[in-house]
Amino acid sequence: MKVDGTHYRSLWWDAKKDALQIIDQRWLPHEFRTQSVVTLQDFADAIIQMRVRGAPLIGATAAYGMALAMFIDPSDAHMAQAWEFLHNTRPTAINLRWALNRCQTALLPLPVADRAGAALALAHDIANEDVEINRQIGLNGLNLIQDIAAKKPSGEPVRLLTHCNAGWIATVDWGTATSPMYHAHNAGIALHIWVDETRPRNQDALTSWELGSHGIAHTYITDNAGGHLMQHGQVDMVITGTDRTTRRGDVCNKIGTYLKALAAHDNGVPFYVALPSPTIDWTVADGVADIPIKDRGEREITYVMGRNNAGQITEVQVTPDGTHGGNPAFDVTPNRLVSGLITERGICDASEAGLTAMFPDLSG
Amino acid sequence: MKVDGTHYRSLWWDAKKDALQIIDQRWLPHEFRTQSVVTLQDFADAIIQMRVRGAPLIGATAAYGMALAMFIDPSDAHMAQAWEFLHNTRPTAINLRWALNRCQTALLPLPVADRAGAALALAHDIANEDVEINRQIGLNGLNLIQDIAAKKPSGEPVRLLTHCNAGWIATVDWGTATSPMYHAHNAGIALHIWVDETRPRNQDALTSWELGSHGIAHTYITDNAGGHLMQHGQVDMVITGTDRTTRRGDVCNKIGTYLKALAAHDNGVPFYVALPSPTIDWTVADGVADIPIKDRGEREITYVMGRNNAGQITEVQVTPDGTHGGNPAFDVTPNRLVSGLITERGICDASEAGLTAMFPDLSG
Repeated sequence: MKVDGTHYRSLWWDAKKDALQIIDQRWLPHEFRTQSVVTLQDFADAIIQMRVRGAPLIGATAAYGMALAMFIDPSDAHMAQAWEFLHNTRPTAINLRWALNRCQTALLPLPVADRAGAALALAHDIANEDVEINRQIGLNGLNLIQDIAAKKPSGEPVRLLTHCNAGWIATVDWGTATSPMYHAHNAGIALHIWVDETRPRNQDALTSWELGSHGIAHTYITDNAGGHLMQHGQVDMVITGTDRTTRRGDVCNKIGTYLKALAAHDNGVPFYVALPSPTIDWTVADGVADIPIKDRGEREITYVMGRNNAGQITEVQVTPDGTHGGNPAFDVTPNRLVSGLITERGICDASEAGLTAMFPDLSG
Repeated sequence: MKVDGTHYRSLWWDAKKDALQIIDQRWLPHEFRTQSVVTLQDFADAIIQMRVRGAPLIGATAAYGMALAMFIDPSDAHMAQAWEFLHNTRPTAINLRWALNRCQTALLPLPVADRAGAALALAHDIANEDVEINRQIGLNGLNLIQDIAAKKPSGEPVRLLTHCNAGWIATVDWGTATSPMYHAHNAGIALHIWVDETRPRNQDALTSWELGSHGIAHTYITDNAGGHLMQHGQVDMVITGTDRTTRRGDVCNKIGTYLKALAAHDNGVPFYVALPSPTIDWTVADGVADIPIKDRGEREITYVMGRNNAGQITEVQVTPDGTHGGNPAFDVTPNRLVSGLITERGICDASEAGLTAMFPDLSG
């Protein structure tokens, strides 16, 4: 999407420099910095240091890393070595593994001399496929927004609430939850986005940066505020992303999503979840019972990161010494609270029937 | 309650120094500093600069301020002048006005020579009455905790969740929501308190300080986490305070309380509210419709206060430049989500019938 009027993807190939370009997201939301990723170590650093973040973006980055490895040495041995090296940058990232496996499967049968070119083309494909999936999610979500807009007096914005950054900088472009917003804005529909700060990591400071950079009106609110806004008719629809959706439509997403879904349900506000089909976990039905939620480090809770008076990005300790922080990073919203799932193929009920009808080829 | 093994109130009269002592709460939760309040300007500074905070504490502080004024000059004219001076420190604080009016009503009929002594005695009374009300709230709430403890295997803690600081440092002692906790702890019941950070002002860093100082086990969590914990059986009861409760038991409290009440209701977790009867607003029934909720300044949203590496209390900016913060400071929890109200007279239903049966003399 746009930054200061120029369209960007969160990664792109610079043919002149013959190198991948990324946004160094560690400086966001305060500074917009781009960089060339030139060596394999650069790729590892980009993933390990979270210069790039978000499952689709990490997957695409790894595919470009594999392409670089094939330019350096296209042998089977080096391919295996690069697979290990890149995989070890974040061994728990399913999308990373998926992208590397896809590269390996496609490249191994090829003559060694063809591998570099094919690997680069495949990385482009993986990036473009992500963009296309998110674009389709956006077009499908746009229908919902258009329906709301059609019932409003002219000029009144459609007010959407979102929780956590499921934005374009977590994907290659468009984002998931944000894609309907960008499509609606680009179609000339007036919007106002309520952006939950999303403690503990305040990811929606990134969403604020995205929306502001693209020119979409928004207000950053505490995670506590959404219920009150919904009670008072200030929210027309909630759209969030998801890390993992079960086959019956339970939605695992950033901690606090469940509370917003409860408030939406209590106030008759539609609650939609935007997701690319690869994030559906067909092996799990009951998300509350069967998705383990791990605690992340407590420093994320007891310290807050921001920019100090001197312009430096730094941390402050909020709690007294000796207080421990509890940090469950995700929660599960039961399907009964979800109005529908916005996928690249269309919108379906958050139910096993809805998902299998939409994805008969995947639900096996 | 206790700080490092010594019992403190949040204000106390030092007979040797002939001066009121307060805790300068601006340094909490990072440092525990006390100070003498000697001049009328000291009193004004203490209230204006929020060295003291919380309605009951502000009221008691003002009463001591009036006592000082009577020692300086007990004339009617000076009493009126002191009333104005102290009232102007926080004109919107109902408890401040109430305390000053009570002093004026009691002192005006007295001979001028008796006023200083009577004013000091009255300030002591106002402080002691607050302590006694909160002690009774605690004893009533203790019954609920004992019932939960009785059903647990020996040694398993009762796990309570609270939202915002309704603690002893917001009152003269005990606090409201925390009073049952202190009573239970003092009675030897094992507790574990989930402490919501309570964005935007992170008041529960103060609760963490209180609980830690008194020796009660607790974990500081994001406001997002409570729903997940309740889904997984980690919360036995929620107890919050309230700023204002309507005659039918709708509860106006710090923003986000409503979301916790929804989660408690969805998971069958009892949700109780602790309140002294003076905070019941008998003139309002429907809290969601009829209690106006004002937005506070947006800097509370876009900046976070804490202690930096150098040990200084400072702010960091979390959001990008140009992003606006929305800051509704309170929300209203409808009575249907409230299991009961813990008052100084006992526990009643959150309903007009419940409240009028408990307070027939007040409900008029």
